[in-house]
Parts: sequence; structure tokens; C-alpha cells
Amino acid sequence: MYAPRRRQEEGEDVTGDRTIHETEKAVRVKLGGTPVAYEQMAAVSNIYRAAAAVRQHFENSVLRGAELTWTSFVVLYVVWIWGEMETRYVAEEAGISKGTLTGVARTLMGRGLLERRGHPDDGRLVLLRLTEEGERTMNEVFPAFNAEEAFVTEGLTDAECETLADLLRKIVVRTEEKGDDRRQDLLNGAPPAPRRSGRKPRPAA
Amino acid sequence: MYAPRRRQEEGEDVTGDRTIHETEKAVRVKLGGTPVAYEQMAAVSNIYRAAAAVRQHFENSVLRGAELTWTSFVVLYVVWIWGEMETRYVAEEAGISKGTLTGVARTLMGRGLLERRGHPDDGRLVLLRLTEEGERTMNEVFPAFNAEEAFVTEGLTDAECETLADLLRKIVVRTEEKGDDRRQDLLNGAPPAPRRSGRKPRPAA
Repeated sequence: MYAPRRRQEEGEDVTGDRTIHETEKAVRVKLGGTPVAYEQMAAVSNIYRAAAAVRQHFENSVLRGAELTWTSFVVLYVVWIWGEMETRYVAEEAGISKGTLTGVARTLMGRGLLERRGHPDDGRLVLLRLTEEGERTMNEVFPAFNAEEAFVTEGLTDAECETLADLLRKIVVRTEEKGDDRRQDLLNGAPPAPRRSGRKPRPAA
Repeated sequence: MYAPRRRQEEGEDVTGDRTIHETEKAVRVKLGGTPVAYEQMAAVSNIYRAAAAVRQHFENSVLRGAELTWTSFVVLYVVWIWGEMETRYVAEEAGISKGTLTGVARTLMGRGLLERRGHPDDGRLVLLRLTEEGERTMNEVFPAFNAEEAFVTEGLTDAECETLADLLRKIVVRTEEKGDDRRQDLLNGAPPAPRRSGRKPRPAA
């Protein structure tokens, strides 16, 4: 009655070629003759798979040792690289909602790694920066993090890493530049459905 | 005292080439002479950026209309493609923890899209499958989802999409196959630090 999970039963890797084709086949069965953009489907679903696999490896190795979640590391990294920054830009740069940032920042402040103050020119805005302890932590954690970046990409040459970064960058730029228009077109004049994810849209570029 | 956010102030795109180089420059300043794997850093951080940008676009377009979060869509998608499945494999395939799956599955069951039953051979195991309403929803949502997969990859040729999928697949396979050994090596005999993320490691392949 239920589909056996082949990797478990035959030692096969579902991320390998065969199962990508099996996925296509299963989608074809599901959708009959409806045309499907398969290359695009494979690209996007592998972005998601790779992001999940990489995040899990980092959280169970270098970040676990430093007692940081992926999101808290990304927040520290953004503020470490770019210096003191308004919360809204930290959230945008880290790819998280302002609500998520509030929780993460509270935890990091509680651990003495991050501090906040009101913007000197506009007290409604909040600035975040690393404490000295936060700087020390990042100076230690970043090289270890980078070593794991090298580990997960070990199967790729430097040139392939550049190609990968370029192709991904095109997707990011396209989505950020054309996304608002696309979403308006999809609505076709209808008001947007109520938001479920608690995530704010990015401001228009 | 704080770094101005250039994109906001000069209309520059931080995902463009210049700011990737600025990031490198900032990292070089931070780390002095320590060697850094820059291509690998760019590849991994762009996986994360692309995953966040794509997810945000999907949640604010096709998924918002269907009142689904990204994670709930992925869970429905896995069960739609592969048929009735044990919860642990659904979680693994969706790249989420079993705890997260429990919450998502509860919501989807409450909406009549998913149903659960005990495994006929072992009552401790739980199987998930789509309801008829869940099947109908996926038959509608998947083509719209696939159209957005085509939108976000519009800047890439079919061949580039295949290259992208292949490079990402290498990262996934490497991380899944060698990750356990790597994490053991990093611990160097020490017991693992307490887990912070609530996420279970994958079973050894």
C-alpha cells in the first residue's frame, strides 16, 4: 500500500541520478500529459536539498561546538563582516524575517555576543553590533566554518565552485529584481491572500 | 560608527559581483593573512542566499495563494510523489526534523489534506498519506509551483539548469556520504557537544 523507501532497502542514494529520474517518472505519472519544466524543477529542488544538507552538516559540526544555530551564525556573520547595522538590514541580509531576528538577537545578546542601541539620528531604529566577545567568537568560528565550506564542496574544482556561485547569483538577482512584478502579475489585480508565514516581503529595489 | 548599507543608499545590488568582492575584502581585513577558501565560501553562501530568495518568492506567490508554507508544501510534495510513507522517511526526505514534521503534519491533517495511520506490521510506526482533497490540492498547486521554478531560473538555459543541478547534487552526495566521518574526525575522540537545534543526525548510510 505504501511506497517502499528504496535508499533504506537497497542502499541506493535518492540524491543520485537514478532517483532524480524516478522522481521525474513519478511526476509524469501524477500529471499525465501536462508539460513540466524538469531541468528547472531539478535545479530548484537541488538548491533546497543542498541548503538542507549543508545546514545540517554545519549545525552538527562547527556550529554545534560553538553552540550556535545556523540562523544565529548567519546573523553574527552579517554583523561581523559589515559592522554595526540597522536591524532591518541585518534581517534582509540574513534572509530572515524581523520577527525571527528579534528572537535570535535576544539569545545572542543574552550570551554576550551581540549588543543593541538606538540609532543616534532616529531613536525608532535599532542598531546591532558584536561585542568584543562576539568578535572573538567569530574570529575563531569563521575559519572553522570556512573549512567546512571547503569540505562540502570538496567534489568540485575551484572553477566549478565559481560556476555554481555564478548560476545561483543569477537566480538570486532575477528573483529579487523581477519577483515583485511577477507576484503582481500572478495576482492579476486580486488582493494578495492573507500571509501565513509571518515573513515580510522585501522592499522594492 | 556603523557600516552604511550600500544597496539602500546607492541602489547597488549586494548580490552582484561587486559586493561579493567587497565581502571577500571585508573577510580579508577581518582575518588578516589567514588563508580563506573564497570560491568555496561564495558557492556555499550563494546556496543559502538562493534558497532563501526562492523560498520567499514561492511563499509570497503560489504557496500563499494555496495557504501553504514552504515546509508544508515540501511535506505534501514528498507524500504526493512517493505515496504513503513512514513519518521518519518523510522527515528525512523533506530535510526537516521529526519534531517539525509532527507540527506540520498536524496542521495539514487539520485542513483535511493529509491522514495518518499505524503501520500494519508495527503499530509503533506511523504512515502518512494524502487525502483525496490533498491529492486535488497537489494536482492544482504543483503545476503553479513548477511555473515559478521556471520563473526563478529564467536567466539560465536548460543546460545551465542541468549543470546547476549536477553541481548541487555533488555537494549533497558528498555531505551525506562523508559527513558522518568528517564530524567524527572533527570531534577527535571528544563526545559531541549538546545539540542546540533539536535536529536529529541522519542515520549512517
